[in-house]
Amino acid sequence: MKRKPVIFVTNDDGLHAPGLRKLIEIMRSLGTVVVVAPDKPQSGTAHGITINVPLRLKTIVKEPGYEEYSCNGTPVDCVKLGFRVVLKVRPDMLVSGVNHGSNASINIIYSGTMAGVLEGAMAGIPSIGFSILNYSHDVNLEPCAKYIKQISENVLNLGLPAGVCLNVNIPYAPESAIQGIHICKQAGGTWQEDFDERIDPGGRKYYWLKGIFVKIDDAQDTDEYALEHNFISIVPVQFDFTAQQAIALLKTWPLNV
Amino acid sequence: MKRKPVIFVTNDDGLHAPGLRKLIEIMRSLGTVVVVAPDKPQSGTAHGITINVPLRLKTIVKEPGYEEYSCNGTPVDCVKLGFRVVLKVRPDMLVSGVNHGSNASINIIYSGTMAGVLEGAMAGIPSIGFSILNYSHDVNLEPCAKYIKQISENVLNLGLPAGVCLNVNIPYAPESAIQGIHICKQAGGTWQEDFDERIDPGGRKYYWLKGIFVKIDDAQDTDEYALEHNFISIVPVQFDFTAQQAIALLKTWPLNV
Repeated sequence: MKRKPVIFVTNDDGLHAPGLRKLIEIMRSLGTVVVVAPDKPQSGTAHGITINVPLRLKTIVKEPGYEEYSCNGTPVDCVKLGFRVVLKVRPDMLVSGVNHGSNASINIIYSGTMAGVLEGAMAGIPSIGFSILNYSHDVNLEPCAKYIKQISENVLNLGLPAGVCLNVNIPYAPESAIQGIHICKQAGGTWQEDFDERIDPGGRKYYWLKGIFVKIDDAQDTDEYALEHNFISIVPVQFDFTAQQAIALLKTWPLNV
Repeated sequence: MKRKPVIFVTNDDGLHAPGLRKLIEIMRSLGTVVVVAPDKPQSGTAHGITINVPLRLKTIVKEPGYEEYSCNGTPVDCVKLGFRVVLKVRPDMLVSGVNHGSNASINIIYSGTMAGVLEGAMAGIPSIGFSILNYSHDVNLEPCAKYIKQISENVLNLGLPAGVCLNVNIPYAPESAIQGIHICKQAGGTWQEDFDERIDPGGRKYYWLKGIFVKIDDAQDTDEYALEHNFISIVPVQFDFTAQQAIALLKTWPLNV
């Protein structure tokens, strides 16, 4: 690649999250970087878009080779605004994260980080989401930096198939313990959830969601299995949700009668 | 089925949307119905969950065979609260909608209606989302009622494969014009989007998202093709987002070096 690649960066933990700052640092070693990230945490917003409130964009940094903006919307809003309003060219790559917490298995469906990635893929841009299996904002991201750079260089050099993006999850482990990278599929899993029922000072009930993630998949070619064994997992992800294997079955149903 | 089936109903247009009221009416002819729906429109919230604000549940109706509650959260919150707090039994089926507007093609990814359906499927409940291709709240839902009932009866009688739910879209047409039902796949499509840039009274810029949907798929076995030809489309949908076909390619990449 002759000119420096243009790399678009977003996340869902917000502009000040250490995971985003580290990702920006790594990407600045690879190309021209434009960041549009939420002005506050947007975890759990999934693929939500803002339609009832006007969007605002605030310029934080604008210098040659690096621009940074905050937005009052979701990660998907950040990508749409970033592509349509901020960028003057199509980016060569979109990266999102580093998310503070796992987006492996079914957690992808709730993830704002991965929603930004899917939105990039839907626009035809090679896109990667990075997450580390630790919720702390003090997490040491140094051990995973070289892997993030290596995976990103591969995507810049080789591209990705149309309609496919990457969900990368990183075990929380010292560098010496990380075993390498596994290409794998999304593990079956479920949240065993419950609600914490409380009474407010006015005597009215309210509820907080709580739960624990449970893997329900013994296969060894999954992201959860890789992560349990201290491998970085890369799952290729698509936004065609058709369950192809069910089409033939449904065609046998007594419909159109 | 000897006892009356228990049917859980939700949507994303809110408790007062005519599409929901029609769906409730149809479901009450099939079984015991429990409704938990958002107290305000939640379109575009996708699979978002509420984690920073406590959830509230308000009892609207509680009588033998029929219960109705509103919730201040997203459709996914409604399903989680409904299953964990309201229902004393596992429902036999979940239905969501009738959404005022299309959820065909990639629109599924932004849809709160379909997020509720996917959440039901993730809990192992046979789940269906219904949408009609008309945004008006005055839309005549009579022509599609018999199809909604027929599809729901099939799901109650035959179940659905594990991990699969249904995305049903209904053309806006008089009953005589509806040609029947097609089982099909999600069409390729994209939003040609732009932002309406305006200046507020304080002199600051703000943005509204706008756009038009464009089909980019000539195949005849898609939901968009079916709907264009006045067929009701049924797409079986899964929440395993793995792009299986890309795994072999990624395994050839120079990683782990």
